[in-house]
Amino acid sequence: MYTDMNKDELLKLKTETEEKYAQLCAKGLKLDMSRGKPGADQLDLSIEMLTHCIDGDCVSLDGIDCRNYGILDGIREAKELCMPMLGVGKDEIIIGGNSSLQLMYDTIARAMLLGVLGGDKPWSKNPTVKFLCPAPGYDRHFAICESMGIEMITVPYKSDGPDMDVVEKLVAEDELIKGIWCVPMYSNPEGITYSDEVVKRFANLSPKAKDFRIFWDNAYCVHHLTDTPDTLLNLLEEAKKTGKQDMVFMFTSTSKISFPGGGLSVIGASAANIEYMKSQMTYQTIGYDKLNQLRHARFFKDFDGIKAHMEKHRAIVEPKFNTVLDMLDKEIAPLGFGSWHKPNGGYFVSFNGLKGTAKRTVELCKQAGVVLTGAGATFPYGKDPEDRNIRIAPTYPTTDELYAAMEVFVTAVKLAAIETLV
Amino acid sequence: MYTDMNKDELLKLKTETEEKYAQLCAKGLKLDMSRGKPGADQLDLSIEMLTHCIDGDCVSLDGIDCRNYGILDGIREAKELCMPMLGVGKDEIIIGGNSSLQLMYDTIARAMLLGVLGGDKPWSKNPTVKFLCPAPGYDRHFAICESMGIEMITVPYKSDGPDMDVVEKLVAEDELIKGIWCVPMYSNPEGITYSDEVVKRFANLSPKAKDFRIFWDNAYCVHHLTDTPDTLLNLLEEAKKTGKQDMVFMFTSTSKISFPGGGLSVIGASAANIEYMKSQMTYQTIGYDKLNQLRHARFFKDFDGIKAHMEKHRAIVEPKFNTVLDMLDKEIAPLGFGSWHKPNGGYFVSFNGLKGTAKRTVELCKQAGVVLTGAGATFPYGKDPEDRNIRIAPTYPTTDELYAAMEVFVTAVKLAAIETLV
Repeated sequence: MYTDMNKDELLKLKTETEEKYAQLCAKGLKLDMSRGKPGADQLDLSIEMLTHCIDGDCVSLDGIDCRNYGILDGIREAKELCMPMLGVGKDEIIIGGNSSLQLMYDTIARAMLLGVLGGDKPWSKNPTVKFLCPAPGYDRHFAICESMGIEMITVPYKSDGPDMDVVEKLVAEDELIKGIWCVPMYSNPEGITYSDEVVKRFANLSPKAKDFRIFWDNAYCVHHLTDTPDTLLNLLEEAKKTGKQDMVFMFTSTSKISFPGGGLSVIGASAANIEYMKSQMTYQTIGYDKLNQLRHARFFKDFDGIKAHMEKHRAIVEPKFNTVLDMLDKEIAPLGFGSWHKPNGGYFVSFNGLKGTAKRTVELCKQAGVVLTGAGATFPYGKDPEDRNIRIAPTYPTTDELYAAMEVFVTAVKLAAIETLV
Repeated sequence: MYTDMNKDELLKLKTETEEKYAQLCAKGLKLDMSRGKPGADQLDLSIEMLTHCIDGDCVSLDGIDCRNYGILDGIREAKELCMPMLGVGKDEIIIGGNSSLQLMYDTIARAMLLGVLGGDKPWSKNPTVKFLCPAPGYDRHFAICESMGIEMITVPYKSDGPDMDVVEKLVAEDELIKGIWCVPMYSNPEGITYSDEVVKRFANLSPKAKDFRIFWDNAYCVHHLTDTPDTLLNLLEEAKKTGKQDMVFMFTSTSKISFPGGGLSVIGASAANIEYMKSQMTYQTIGYDKLNQLRHARFFKDFDGIKAHMEKHRAIVEPKFNTVLDMLDKEIAPLGFGSWHKPNGGYFVSFNGLKGTAKRTVELCKQAGVVLTGAGATFPYGKDPEDRNIRIAPTYPTTDELYAAMEVFVTAVKLAAIETLV
């Protein structure tokens, strides 16, 4: 551990690490670990999907010609395919286009411009609108808020989800807090799954704002990396028990199941919320791409089909996570230059270095040809108060590339750490 | 002509028409002419498109794996395919998802929430926002405004486009007028194409609001129904001559070229507008469906491919328009119970009956099993001040169905007219 080292030992380690870093820079690497992007081999798993409908049979179970206009909320078989992902019923779902980010953005845009069910005015008619942002979290969630001028309040994470004492207190006090961002399963980036108690406390929130909504982005609901996956309570069902089901907006997508650029996105919510949203959405579009819905339904057949498909993803992704974790265990753990935990699923390993080292680490990686998510990106306004958190996305590089990138990463972590110590 | 008939003659015609109407009602028809929906045979024309990419070759000309995330504004070959539709360059285009309505809605939502290039605040920060609405026009345009509380001001049409004296005067006077809706070619529903003079006057508008935009929905830019199609001046090019190019937002789609439920939508605008829009859109989505873009580019190859494809549509659609027009010529023209004109393209025949007869005509059709677009739908707030205009959409029914529906329509027109006369 670095805490056991004297200055000479640290300086010696510094020299060694600088030499190693120079060698790595000389390799002229060009690698990207910045985003949670599936690798090409993962995309190949779904290529057969594209063969559906090519025979001209484009009619859904309900007799809808999926090539033509209509059916705002999605065809029946696509709903049935996706309902188990969120654990919702047939009146509690809308199938969207290729982007759940877009569904979330649009949901907030509508709330700002038009308001939500039970609200007495559009959010934007308030002097200001605030969101709670458990952090570290998903940078694109925070970016939506920032783009719309929604004030973000950081909420710390505990080991089983957001600090609910803080959440409960804040929402009860401030009527201008209209929402909270959550990635409840294999959270981005921490890989945490919310405990039953946390979900129940969410279901029982008593916000001062009656038009408050929980944005429950269950992006990694089937993205397990172990035989003993985490489990997540169904927030909507829990909220029904407290009569607060209209407080919940759930989202997911097949972006990391089928194709990131050509998947299906999903909203799950109470039947009343869904009806209300549809009454607003009907002005925006006549319907999303039903041909793609039909392809998905025919290819995966049902939820078991999705689960079996995710095992194929796991076979590709799990070794990559192990490469990352092994390298951290071997190179960083003995020195104590950071902490992390092994997630049971999802797309990220969240690395927390010594205070004040994240930006420098990312910079050193970049100079050596390895692009990481910007330090701070996982916090509101891009500002990590302790400059510690770095999101590692292992999926996109090949295993060889990932190994090379992680060599750079651990070397950069060491250098950045030593620089703050000597 | 009915003006030459005495009361007895009218009453005799009424009795005959009522008998005919009763016979038609007895048939128990169930036909829908309410929307501009292509028929199934038109959709079959593009079915081969779906065979592209199924071999796993999903890489664009620029080396982009179209299955994965990214490329907010669309792949190069999709842009090149669609650029000639609007007459724009490679920096003046964004390829969207399956719905140009959604692009238009989102463009207005962003303008309301965030503002447009050159504006000093979001539109919604004004006490009220107003749009000019040339009418009769597209009901879904008006519905977007209504849903967002944007005040609509009706502008009358002349034979070559909106009354530009009115448009010029209003936009110059009122800073709260932020936009105008236009369908400049084969307009919905009138089938009018704006004259060169009208386009030039649009290009030279001097709105008081510096964040004013022309919403130029060129939905029918290649939807000709004659060997001597209408021509439309390129608004963006004309506006460049006056230095007012940032005033123009153009839209189109392949909805009625390939698949209404699975086509491509397009925004065309000045390079500066496009850059600005992209800087806003990046918060909403990582990118639209590039696989569908690739399929379109590979299937149509180029603009000539689109034009050749539209000839196939014309072969199906033109006879349907003729069925409508022949029936009107034969049954209504001699009596003078309405007026219309033969459009050279587009999706509609716009029928203007005697004052105060449109609602009744639509009601009579409905009772006989023929659904038309609601009377008044072509005007802001659904209110046709003279209750005259009915939009006929000939494409969706088969030719036999269309003939049956038009029998009902002309009978209903006669009955409604006579009822106001006797």
